[in-house]
Amino acid sequence: MNPFRFHNPTALYYGKGQLELELVNEVKHYGQRVLLLYGGGSIRRNGLYDKVVGLLQAGDIAVVELAGVEPNPRLTTVHRGIELCRTHSIDLILAVGGGSVLDCAKAIAMGVCFDGEVYDIYQRKAVATGALPIGTVLTLAATGSEMNSGGVITNWETKEKLGGGSPFTYPKFSFCDPENTFTVPKDQTVYGACDMLAHALEHYFHRTENAPLQRRMIESVLKTILETTPKVLANPEDYDARETMMYCSTMALNGMVSMGIQGDWANHAMEHEVSAIYDIPHGGGLAILFPHWMDYVVEEAPLRFADLARNVFGISEATSELSLARAGIAALRDFYASIGAPQRLAEYGIGSDQLDWMAEQSVRFGAIGNYRKLEKTDVLAILTAAL
Amino acid sequence: MNPFRFHNPTALYYGKGQLELELVNEVKHYGQRVLLLYGGGSIRRNGLYDKVVGLLQAGDIAVVELAGVEPNPRLTTVHRGIELCRTHSIDLILAVGGGSVLDCAKAIAMGVCFDGEVYDIYQRKAVATGALPIGTVLTLAATGSEMNSGGVITNWETKEKLGGGSPFTYPKFSFCDPENTFTVPKDQTVYGACDMLAHALEHYFHRTENAPLQRRMIESVLKTILETTPKVLANPEDYDARETMMYCSTMALNGMVSMGIQGDWANHAMEHEVSAIYDIPHGGGLAILFPHWMDYVVEEAPLRFADLARNVFGISEATSELSLARAGIAALRDFYASIGAPQRLAEYGIGSDQLDWMAEQSVRFGAIGNYRKLEKTDVLAILTAAL
Repeated sequence: MNPFRFHNPTALYYGKGQLELELVNEVKHYGQRVLLLYGGGSIRRNGLYDKVVGLLQAGDIAVVELAGVEPNPRLTTVHRGIELCRTHSIDLILAVGGGSVLDCAKAIAMGVCFDGEVYDIYQRKAVATGALPIGTVLTLAATGSEMNSGGVITNWETKEKLGGGSPFTYPKFSFCDPENTFTVPKDQTVYGACDMLAHALEHYFHRTENAPLQRRMIESVLKTILETTPKVLANPEDYDARETMMYCSTMALNGMVSMGIQGDWANHAMEHEVSAIYDIPHGGGLAILFPHWMDYVVEEAPLRFADLARNVFGISEATSELSLARAGIAALRDFYASIGAPQRLAEYGIGSDQLDWMAEQSVRFGAIGNYRKLEKTDVLAILTAAL
Repeated sequence: MNPFRFHNPTALYYGKGQLELELVNEVKHYGQRVLLLYGGGSIRRNGLYDKVVGLLQAGDIAVVELAGVEPNPRLTTVHRGIELCRTHSIDLILAVGGGSVLDCAKAIAMGVCFDGEVYDIYQRKAVATGALPIGTVLTLAATGSEMNSGGVITNWETKEKLGGGSPFTYPKFSFCDPENTFTVPKDQTVYGACDMLAHALEHYFHRTENAPLQRRMIESVLKTILETTPKVLANPEDYDARETMMYCSTMALNGMVSMGIQGDWANHAMEHEVSAIYDIPHGGGLAILFPHWMDYVVEEAPLRFADLARNVFGISEATSELSLARAGIAALRDFYASIGAPQRLAEYGIGSDQLDWMAEQSVRFGAIGNYRKLEKTDVLAILTAAL
């Protein structure tokens, strides 16, 4: 494995009843004034908003609200949040929602402590100098944002969607109650499954030598997602299945299965360019792109694909390492189809007209991918195949 | 899974060259005065002592030393450490060694901040009120102490060996360089393997419902230890094998594979009583006891044993769940034998004369074990079988 430093300071709470017991205690470690950040209002419909506000009020916590964070959170919203935090001397941002709300909280938190335009951090022009403390109440199993320091922000003016973060943006605490995901609609549940699966796959496709435990742990995450997704789709109020999905989403991107390995991440880079223009769901975009990326790179390095086929999908019969590898890709495609994930960009009405620009943009900081370096022509070929 | 709170704040460094780059920076976050704690002098022979002291001196860190921490660290040594820390206004304890040195550091760290006898914390008569910061440089892959808050202390006067800790005793940072384990002798390497294997097994034998990812992750740790131990014994300077062993030891007991499950831990409770009297290596005691514990409890609940046989040892053919379970236990015995681990208490010259007292002591805080509750008579039966 590569030399590494691992430090994940998030206090993670899982299960029923934890919020009621511990939310106010956790908040009070950081202060008395909270920015409550949430999205389109689903938490108002399912009662979570009332519960959280009730707890904060009973704990004498002052609450300022910012609602309406977008599914691909926008820089304009981040700016509004920064202003609110400064105006009201906010001590902690409490993000109640899915990855988008959490990512928005991270950007606001960095922005409040940054003397300049926060977007510069996402553009790699600057480095975060600090962040307001963040707490989260998770409502969607998908991004792992509840226990990592990263997030993605969309600049709608420049049609850019960029990931960023800093060691300051690990949430101080995160509350993960599977019941808060019972009302997630079917399509969002599918996108969440595709997202966490993609995180595990990005880790899995690495070329770091000597990481047998990491390989097995990533395979563990992959197998558990594959096994559990159909259960949660069949019965959205299956507590155990929702709990397992939530736990997989956290473990897929909190760094615990990927210490000392350098994952690929080209699919994320490409997908961000697609959704920066078309505003499609991140998980949907990843489900479309991953098999096409696999088709494109498998011949050059079939080994890890053969591992995937053998250890994750349980395929053992094949005439060659390459045919085994291809059988694994086919099995992944079958899984995506079985859960109703999109398989072509055309399903989102995306045609060929912007492909060149997306390919250009995806490599603007340099070639993408670590398992296989992709230049613009490679990206274009993959996007074209995915149309 | 059970509701849980997980919070592991240790900054973990793995690999070559990290110590040189980061040790002084990390120490200086906490102050300028260090208690350097180490064991019997192996770090003087292999050059690590000189390296660490050289780095600290070059960084203008004042160093006070306490050498000679015992393999089962003793309360008397803890008391000496507490006095040194108080006398010299120590800011951070730097433990350079294996689990014993690290455990001793945790006891000293709690003791310095505790107004009373630190042993009361281990006897469950008191709770830690704080701890000096601890940093570690690991030299033995075994206990996982480098990334957890627990430790074990022996009171030689009362012949008690008790585990304890607190949220304050997670090391602030730990440096894990596989090269620092190259000179670990064969027997210590075997005991280390047995110890980490036992930690994974203690987690594995739980009755918590709905923990498929945890099960797979523990199986990942188990399989990787089984696969790597023979390599490291065949070639003690195999960097990759030493690295994998070290990483397995950390992951087996840093809480990451056991969130929300309640492991068994009866074997640890029994072994502590054996080594409190006979001062035998902890890993050796665990290797002796575990198969006998398994024999004793398998019939009542063969399911998890069948999982072990099937998923860890790859045994698929069996006439019944119970025979499959027994085949798994036999495979574990074979593994212990293959690496030269002890299999009988008699190998340490232990006879039947103290068994009753050990059984009595092991349940003095109540029945032990969570997979199967053991009373004194149960413990006595297991110890007798292990003679």
